[in-house]
Amino acid sequence: MTAVDGGVRPPAAAPPTPHPRLSLNQATIKHATLAEALDASVAAGLQSIGLWREPVAEVGLAEAVRLVASSGLRVSSLCRGGFFTAPESAERRAAMDENRRAIDETAALAAAGAEGSAAVLVLVAGGIPTGSTDLIGARLRVAEALTELAPYAADAGVQLAIEPLHPMYASDRAVVSTLEQALDLAAPFDAATVGVVVDTFHLWWDPAVLDQVARAGREGRIASYQVCDWATPLPEDVLLARHYPGEGVIDFAGFTRAVEAAGYRGDIEVELFHADIWAAPYADVVARTADSFDRVVAAHLRETAVAG
Amino acid sequence: MTAVDGGVRPPAAAPPTPHPRLSLNQATIKHATLAEALDASVAAGLQSIGLWREPVAEVGLAEAVRLVASSGLRVSSLCRGGFFTAPESAERRAAMDENRRAIDETAALAAAGAEGSAAVLVLVAGGIPTGSTDLIGARLRVAEALTELAPYAADAGVQLAIEPLHPMYASDRAVVSTLEQALDLAAPFDAATVGVVVDTFHLWWDPAVLDQVARAGREGRIASYQVCDWATPLPEDVLLARHYPGEGVIDFAGFTRAVEAAGYRGDIEVELFHADIWAAPYADVVARTADSFDRVVAAHLRETAVAG
Repeated sequence: MTAVDGGVRPPAAAPPTPHPRLSLNQATIKHATLAEALDASVAAGLQSIGLWREPVAEVGLAEAVRLVASSGLRVSSLCRGGFFTAPESAERRAAMDENRRAIDETAALAAAGAEGSAAVLVLVAGGIPTGSTDLIGARLRVAEALTELAPYAADAGVQLAIEPLHPMYASDRAVVSTLEQALDLAAPFDAATVGVVVDTFHLWWDPAVLDQVARAGREGRIASYQVCDWATPLPEDVLLARHYPGEGVIDFAGFTRAVEAAGYRGDIEVELFHADIWAAPYADVVARTADSFDRVVAAHLRETAVAG
Repeated sequence: MTAVDGGVRPPAAAPPTPHPRLSLNQATIKHATLAEALDASVAAGLQSIGLWREPVAEVGLAEAVRLVASSGLRVSSLCRGGFFTAPESAERRAAMDENRRAIDETAALAAAGAEGSAAVLVLVAGGIPTGSTDLIGARLRVAEALTELAPYAADAGVQLAIEPLHPMYASDRAVVSTLEQALDLAAPFDAATVGVVVDTFHLWWDPAVLDQVARAGREGRIASYQVCDWATPLPEDVLLARHYPGEGVIDFAGFTRAVEAAGYRGDIEVELFHADIWAAPYADVVARTADSFDRVVAAHLRETAVAG
């Protein structure tokens, strides 16, 4: 694989080297164990991976740290914390404890990853509590949760990354629906402690999104850039509606240039939730992810280096 | 039915008189002919109906005008024009001609309706043209279509009402997704010619919506207030996800008070797209619509009179 450096062409059958900033979000191969996901990423020539807590928990944090360190991969984020819209209660206290554990895991896994790893914990806010119609109250409790967790995250050197989710998930997954709202929630805190996730799937429809990407850049809050495509009709389970970049309606040129112009230089995750993709062999999914990223996203990146 | 005015209580079995500002959007009983929809509304004691073009076309405009006039009902709106995101082409010209016909129908039907009828044509913008990823271009063509149609609408005395649709429809139904965006599109035109629809189902999730409802009021652009509820999980066809007010997560108290405070005094439509509702007897649907409106929406209305 020295085509670029040494002029030796790889054999015709060899896949191209994936873009150095591409990170496979592990949810894209949901059924893989942590070891399998790391192996599939390394085998495909990827340099970075976005982790999820569940496969980490499966092997335990200590073993996960060992696996990540020996993979040589960067860690681009850990999914996910959040789900803290419940009113004050034992349930809310349990959610806060869970978030503190997630912060600890983020710090440990990022430290185990290769240089350039990001100690970023993705936060999905949670929906409106069952039986309630108090959306505004649920949002206030997100702000309160950030206030409670920010000092703990700061001590751990972890950046909390608020992820606005598509408004079709506002009732049951995330009462944070726009980038502007996420940035407003982050505003009271240091950018190193509270940032935002820019995910094309969730934000593409928003008439204000490019302005808000620029704002996020000015405020230094882009903690993660995630790409996947939107296509209709939506599947029966709207959680599983995510397509490879280039297979839907999203303008990745415009979006990616905006994120570049905003100064983001970190890894870029491909995070796909889709029944067909989850049913495919991991190696095929990783190869297709790298290929679609190369064609649709990489062409619009001016920078190839990941900020350390 | 003189319980309120004369103190005579209706028999126990009689349904209560529907709220005078309640309008049944005909889509709620989608399979009814125009005559059936008018009859069901009159039989239930409603004073107003929101019409759709298809059942009007079924009988022809002249007969529709006659039926509406003899019903004694107000007409609160006609659904719908729009679908004008295609680039310049024969297809776009055909869409423009269709919109002019819809404007003519709106004027005729509103004139046929009882005093207080509203010559309001609801506009659904249309999605991104097939194969395109140019959302911004599609939105520009909406602005251009309004520029083309506004003089025609003004001559006809019709108010075009831009309806922002939920962002889950942005790719295939409407590239107008927020009330702010609809108001920005309407801004170049007289409020009497271009207004907006405030539909709880489409807008409830938007963190900016109450501010934008107030703005819409200041700018005199609320052409229609439509109520229905959001609940998850979404059905397989997300177009059919609308529930009776009170059966989901929407805060109708806050929303309705905001629309009232913004000065809207017109009819309020209940527009439900739902397979189960469409399968039920019309009279049952109308009765349940009136009952849910009374319990969930009417309590938050300060005014009962419809502006003439």
